[in-house]
Amino acid sequence: MKAFVTGCAGFVGSHLTERLLAEDWDVVGFDNFSTGRRRFLERAVRDPRFLLVEGDLLQTDALQSAMRGAQCVFHFAANADVRRGAEYPRRDLEQNTIATHNVLEAMRVNAVTRIAFASTGSVYGEATVMPTPEEAPFPVQTSLYGASKLACEGLIAAYCEAFALQSWIFRFVSILGERYSHGHVFDFYRQLVSDPTQLHVLGDGRQRKSYLYVEDGIEAIVLATQKARGRVNIYNVGVDSYCEVDDSIAWICEAMQVRPRVLHAGGDRGWVGDNPFIYLDTAKLRALGWRPKLSIEQGVRRTVEYLRSNPWLLEAHA
Amino acid sequence: MKAFVTGCAGFVGSHLTERLLAEDWDVVGFDNFSTGRRRFLERAVRDPRFLLVEGDLLQTDALQSAMRGAQCVFHFAANADVRRGAEYPRRDLEQNTIATHNVLEAMRVNAVTRIAFASTGSVYGEATVMPTPEEAPFPVQTSLYGASKLACEGLIAAYCEAFALQSWIFRFVSILGERYSHGHVFDFYRQLVSDPTQLHVLGDGRQRKSYLYVEDGIEAIVLATQKARGRVNIYNVGVDSYCEVDDSIAWICEAMQVRPRVLHAGGDRGWVGDNPFIYLDTAKLRALGWRPKLSIEQGVRRTVEYLRSNPWLLEAHA
Repeated sequence: MKAFVTGCAGFVGSHLTERLLAEDWDVVGFDNFSTGRRRFLERAVRDPRFLLVEGDLLQTDALQSAMRGAQCVFHFAANADVRRGAEYPRRDLEQNTIATHNVLEAMRVNAVTRIAFASTGSVYGEATVMPTPEEAPFPVQTSLYGASKLACEGLIAAYCEAFALQSWIFRFVSILGERYSHGHVFDFYRQLVSDPTQLHVLGDGRQRKSYLYVEDGIEAIVLATQKARGRVNIYNVGVDSYCEVDDSIAWICEAMQVRPRVLHAGGDRGWVGDNPFIYLDTAKLRALGWRPKLSIEQGVRRTVEYLRSNPWLLEAHA
Repeated sequence: MKAFVTGCAGFVGSHLTERLLAEDWDVVGFDNFSTGRRRFLERAVRDPRFLLVEGDLLQTDALQSAMRGAQCVFHFAANADVRRGAEYPRRDLEQNTIATHNVLEAMRVNAVTRIAFASTGSVYGEATVMPTPEEAPFPVQTSLYGASKLACEGLIAAYCEAFALQSWIFRFVSILGERYSHGHVFDFYRQLVSDPTQLHVLGDGRQRKSYLYVEDGIEAIVLATQKARGRVNIYNVGVDSYCEVDDSIAWICEAMQVRPRVLHAGGDRGWVGDNPFIYLDTAKLRALGWRPKLSIEQGVRRTVEYLRSNPWLLEAHA
């Protein structure tokens, strides 16, 4: 069986690539290295069943020929810079919506009928039901990132109906763990490395957040694609709890053995379009037998451990 | 006050243009005439407050300069060919999703803060609640057309949040009336003009449909944009009843005084991606004081009357 993984050099995509290789798939990885990193693929490239294709999802010819012969697409490439959607609105449109359209068209050309897709809990906008189930009331979008992922979900579902594809759509909470390199734990870590005496925090620190450890997310993907048999299979993926931003700060500081002055910018959200609270009902996924192995606190601590062992990541961001 | 109307030469857009002129707006109409018709603008072009700009929404420079000075955008241009989504998937992406992104960017450049948008009941996919309210369970898309309109809705809502715009999103059932020139009533009429002895019908004739008379739809737009004050105002627009395809055939035949043999192709839907039943709960719009004036039967009969008086439309489609 051959898998085609977009965003194979990204945070989640690289973990998924390794896992698929371990599950005995041949893997063609596709990445434009705009945010992906070659070092994340160090293990994968040593496996003869892995083929790396450097390319962009907006180049339809390259995409179509790279996908040839695949049985399943794992579409994990995306513009994941949720915060700066308002600065570069076209980026979400191109890297998420149009890119996903191109992936679906390449599947049609190559007669690939299965797609797993990394979506986000952001598609629920400001959810009115907590924890939020997959069948929550029809949401109103609040971020360009969420809107673009919703557009992708809609395209995938419509292609499934029109061309008899089968899809698995995963609505993730924020993910952390090894290779995590953006988002608030990363920002806090970076600030504290450069100045352990103070920490600037967007919002009031009370924003509630739910985080999933990356390997638990990978397990959800492997399990659901094996077990769920519907045409369009939609799953929330997250832990059964949440923390406040200030909780995660305490864990980070303890792990780093620093005691900064914490300066809150104030307000109930970090940035325009930030959702104050994404907390997902994962009963549907749990019914397949899935359970996350790490708590939020364990995930945060592992992430800090990883960042300490990989100072190059911080330098790469300088 | 100056309005910018995209798709001003279309079926609904041309009615809206006339109504806005009657309500004392200056109107800049924008159309690429891919499906719009100059004859639909015969009345509007006699009004000195109407300016027609021929252009395409994919040409961002032309769009941005045409929009200059407008206070409100009425975005009614779209690929409305719901049936052929599967033949030309890129068309929905370009004409609906990317075009809407361009409209929103042009608004940002021109500091236009209000947008009314023609969406569709198709965004509910195969709705599980009938009649379907705006807050129905999070739907799964079943057509490329619905998916592209959902993508537009998401973009509009996210822009409202990010850039403090205000929007009115109208989820219409099928619309008919004067200038209607695609969809099943049109197809039946055309078939019966060319051969009054038989009529080919997709599906089994039992598909339930809800139709709104175009002027009732225009009234909804005018009323809601005046009265609804939220940031993102979403309204279903439809009549409080439905008919079966065979009912509409009976009304058409009676109005045309023909008695064809009706040949049903069979199956519970007309085409792949066709929704067997779109029937919307319009309580939210009715709470603003709106009531449709014409029944489905009256709307169908007016449409046939219009088609009889305008044989050029049939010829234009030949």
